Amino acid sequence: MSDAPSAAEEIMDGVYSALRAHGYADLTMQDIADECSKSKSLLHYHYDTKEDLLVAFLEYIVSDSEERIAARADDPPVERLVQFIGWFVFAPDETDREAFHIALLELRTQGPFNERIREQLARSDRLLRGTVADILADGIETGVFRDVDVEETAAMIVATLDGARTRQITLADSVRGDEADGYTRTVAEATLRRIVEPLLADGAELPPLDAAIEALRRDPDSPEPDDPEPDDPETDAAADGSE
Amino acid sequence: MSDAPSAAEEIMDGVYSALRAHGYADLTMQDIADECSKSKSLLHYHYDTKEDLLVAFLEYIVSDSEERIAARADDPPVERLVQFIGWFVFAPDETDREAFHIALLELRTQGPFNERIREQLARSDRLLRGTVADILADGIETGVFRDVDVEETAAMIVATLDGARTRQITLADSVRGDEADGYTRTVAEATLRRIVEPLLADGAELPPLDAAIEALRRDPDSPEPDDPEPDDPETDAAADGSE
Repeated sequence: MSDAPSAAEEIMDGVYSALRAHGYADLTMQDIADECSKSKSLLHYHYDTKEDLLVAFLEYIVSDSEERIAARADDPPVERLVQFIGWFVFAPDETDREAFHIALLELRTQGPFNERIREQLARSDRLLRGTVADILADGIETGVFRDVDVEETAAMIVATLDGARTRQITLADSVRGDEADGYTRTVAEATLRRIVEPLLADGAELPPLDAAIEALRRDPDSPEPDDPEPDDPETDAAADGSE
Repeated sequence: MSDAPSAAEEIMDGVYSALRAHGYADLTMQDIADECSKSKSLLHYHYDTKEDLLVAFLEYIVSDSEERIAARADDPPVERLVQFIGWFVFAPDETDREAFHIALLELRTQGPFNERIREQLARSDRLLRGTVADILADGIETGVFRDVDVEETAAMIVATLDGARTRQITLADSVRGDEADGYTRTVAEATLRRIVEPLLADGAELPPLDAAIEALRRDPDSPEPDDPEPDDPETDAAADGSE
């Protein structure tokens, strides 16, 4: 298999870089062309409008998430749940990730006004809640989780992690003083202790969050749900090369 | 006391209406002037730039929240907590509220780029988390709550409700089919049962969420934290007139 990215992948990487650098509202096709070293006319050959390209980007990152989540479907349920929660955790100094999520949040505010964007957001929502619900159902079946309303629990966990991320990125360094670890870290730990731990059957144990986060960072296949970053050359260079 | 609103209040109502009607990104001073029946030059007399006016609006709604929360500081802790959670609940057909929160979410995405906006967001965050932490501390002191890490619990509850609201407004009617009550309702009930109920001391009971929401709708003084709506003439007309 060739390691060379396809043109489509290069363009998607360009959208990712351009969103981090320019945000969503002011983004132009030229910005994206500059980031992926393609001509603006080539971009327009593939995508009629900026909206077409951004919808394709959303499709791409949700599909990428689907694949990455599917690749882990056979891991033990408790580990999968801790990994899912760990995916949302990022440190306040991960500025690239913060910039990307700010742009993505801007894009999400277009949901009510743009049906194609909303469709992708709804698809992502079904994926996230469905993943947590599946993990819980698997764990109930295998006896590691107590019986619980899986849909409600999934909705709550996804809302909690999403809210923590939104607060961390929008408040930026204004809360760093008293929360050096960041909102996502605080809330992920609370979620494990307050929501997940009470669901564990006798004898089942939570693996530590830190180990899950470390493993996710080492693994280039690790997704961040909702909005997995397309493979980042810098990150991949630092990864263990198992791909 | 006079019931006539001040010019400043009329302008703030205008910003509120204009945000609902136009969103944040495309908002103009003329839009705001039209909504409050003032001239654009009068607005510019009070506020040099659109940014100045929007920062003043954020200051206004956070201050309004502070006052309304302070007015309830003597209510019993468990009731206050259920009310706080109830404030975030809205039905998918409350389109005015949805439109306002979408505009506010757009504004929040400016946090990382605009220090004055970020200051107000941080002030709102301190208010929200501080309110929940105070309620919990009061309840621990009076014996209705068990001893618990109040800061962590507050961060988690605020993140959960904020995340549920963001998901409800951005996904709009794409999830209405299977979630007729809306994300905020589902998650508020789960928060009460999963996070708050385990904190109750023996003998303490949660008042029903519905009654709290009903009371909030009847009471024109009721805030919605983070972003309390300025008094809305339509809502006030339907209120019990106790003001």
